[in-house]
Amino acid sequence: MLTVNAIAAPSATEPLVRTTIERRDLGPRDVLIAIRYAGICHSDIHTVRGEWGEVAYPLTVGHEIVGEVAEVGTEVSKHAVGDRVGVGCMVNSCRECDNCRAGQEQYCLNGNTGTYAAVDRDGTITQGGYSTHVVVDEDFVLRVPETIPYEAAAPLLCAGITTYSPLAHWKAGPGTRVAVVGMGGLGHMAVKIAAALGADVTVLSQTLGKKDDGLTFGAASYYATSDPATFEALRNSFDLIVNTVSAPIDMAAYLGLLRLDGTLVSVGAPPEPLAVPVFALFGNRRTFAGSSIGGIGETQEMLDFCAERGIAPQVEVIGADQVNDAYERVLTSDVRYRFVIDVETLKS
Amino acid sequence: MLTVNAIAAPSATEPLVRTTIERRDLGPRDVLIAIRYAGICHSDIHTVRGEWGEVAYPLTVGHEIVGEVAEVGTEVSKHAVGDRVGVGCMVNSCRECDNCRAGQEQYCLNGNTGTYAAVDRDGTITQGGYSTHVVVDEDFVLRVPETIPYEAAAPLLCAGITTYSPLAHWKAGPGTRVAVVGMGGLGHMAVKIAAALGADVTVLSQTLGKKDDGLTFGAASYYATSDPATFEALRNSFDLIVNTVSAPIDMAAYLGLLRLDGTLVSVGAPPEPLAVPVFALFGNRRTFAGSSIGGIGETQEMLDFCAERGIAPQVEVIGADQVNDAYERVLTSDVRYRFVIDVETLKS
Repeated sequence: MLTVNAIAAPSATEPLVRTTIERRDLGPRDVLIAIRYAGICHSDIHTVRGEWGEVAYPLTVGHEIVGEVAEVGTEVSKHAVGDRVGVGCMVNSCRECDNCRAGQEQYCLNGNTGTYAAVDRDGTITQGGYSTHVVVDEDFVLRVPETIPYEAAAPLLCAGITTYSPLAHWKAGPGTRVAVVGMGGLGHMAVKIAAALGADVTVLSQTLGKKDDGLTFGAASYYATSDPATFEALRNSFDLIVNTVSAPIDMAAYLGLLRLDGTLVSVGAPPEPLAVPVFALFGNRRTFAGSSIGGIGETQEMLDFCAERGIAPQVEVIGADQVNDAYERVLTSDVRYRFVIDVETLKS
Repeated sequence: MLTVNAIAAPSATEPLVRTTIERRDLGPRDVLIAIRYAGICHSDIHTVRGEWGEVAYPLTVGHEIVGEVAEVGTEVSKHAVGDRVGVGCMVNSCRECDNCRAGQEQYCLNGNTGTYAAVDRDGTITQGGYSTHVVVDEDFVLRVPETIPYEAAAPLLCAGITTYSPLAHWKAGPGTRVAVVGMGGLGHMAVKIAAALGADVTVLSQTLGKKDDGLTFGAASYYATSDPATFEALRNSFDLIVNTVSAPIDMAAYLGLLRLDGTLVSVGAPPEPLAVPVFALFGNRRTFAGSSIGGIGETQEMLDFCAERGIAPQVEVIGADQVNDAYERVLTSDVRYRFVIDVETLKS
């Protein structure tokens, strides 16, 4: 067992604190990663505050993890000491079900093992990346290309793959019109990736406050959803709408923006069900879909794609002692566009 | 103007009565059809009773129409006197929008013209098929193959195409598992068509009351949705679920039956929105879609397919004076599986 520095939530209601946590001894197929940066995802906050169900405390969250391989198990063949690597939202899956065999481990029919707050194969509760080290099975460790700076690579492991996967699956590309709802951590990545894939990208944000950024990231147009005229002007326009907003939205209004055979895919979910007027799906044979992160192979593909196209999230690097403040700022959307913890600040 | 016998609703609350209605003089591209049979669709009842919005009375409904061409306009080239023909749920569309040009007139962006209760191009209100004759633009008149009996052809124009279109679009066929929810007029056609397309078909009906019929129609298995064990046994099973039920359903339970990239498509709609838990869409990257009848080209394709495969609905032929009783029986699902009015009984 390895005792390492970390930041943990003592309970659902207390601030996060510095502490130490245990990492398992390296198994033959395990990789020990010396973490360099860890991104802060809104899911981290929902989870530590118990908003998505009960969790065991103390809990260390974080599923946007990058660093260097510090040690490898005796049978590890995919990674070597010194490699630049990353870990995203899952650290294992059953590997036997139809979905795992199809390379869609995120949809493991027996449930993938989340990077934190999940029951690991050995019965312990997984602990996330707000920490100096983590031990992960080599099959769930990604290679981070040299050209992506460490701090920029971290958010790709969740925000990047969560938006890349539906954009790739529903074939965003030249000739398609894509709308991105929300310009936060996920949304800004969706804009960059969709534009890089060649799609005509429109941002639908509450206000025009981030319009300049949106156009810089590659959007061709930018509309305020607080203006009802937006929904008239864009009716029957889009092949794909990627909804990154977790709050409930007016489904009839947004579905009305889809053209023939268009899809609205949600990558964030409100806890309560959404009210979907079925008649809004009849017009244009529209579909409403969900998408959850991506498979391991697809995550590697996304990292390589981002490296090749020079795509990186815009981040604010913070120290370990700023995490609680950062949480408050995430909750008020006061971040452009992702906080990343410099784990160097956790070492002392 | 041609004055013809018909059955009409005098108001939302009164029984249908025998009456006469006017049909327009033949325009150069119009076809006059001597109607032989007209099917009774649940939509007819919703419409005459004002459940789908206000309509103008008296109103003649019916959008499952078959008969013979009695006369053609001077420029008609697609149909000749004596031809066996049919008319479904629409009698015109703008022909200029992207969807019309794509052969998807049912999704006309300017609104297709419904066979009844719609404002026609000349400003009059369209009147449906419970009548001895109808005048329709030749482009919206279908050819009914010789091998399909008239009375069996009628329900294909709505129940047939409404189920064929999503089954074809979402590629039901060999190697796919399809569930049909509901075993009424639409459901029994969905079973027959999906089986003929080569899919492995399961019926999900409230009870096992129609199980023998379902298996005869081509289903491989039949489950009662009143039994919660059904939803456990069939979890993650289907590529496509065709929901023919207009009442609200437990979306989490039904979506849970879809395997990776599976689609639940609704062809019937409750008036109130459905509550969709987004988390149920995340698993298996599921989609929830709507589908509305089919294009004219696709409707012809469906008729030819049914003729080639010997597929026909199971009908109960009734006389003009039995329509009000038939409506009551439709409302209690006491029909196997579609009422068809013998229009001969309207002539005297």
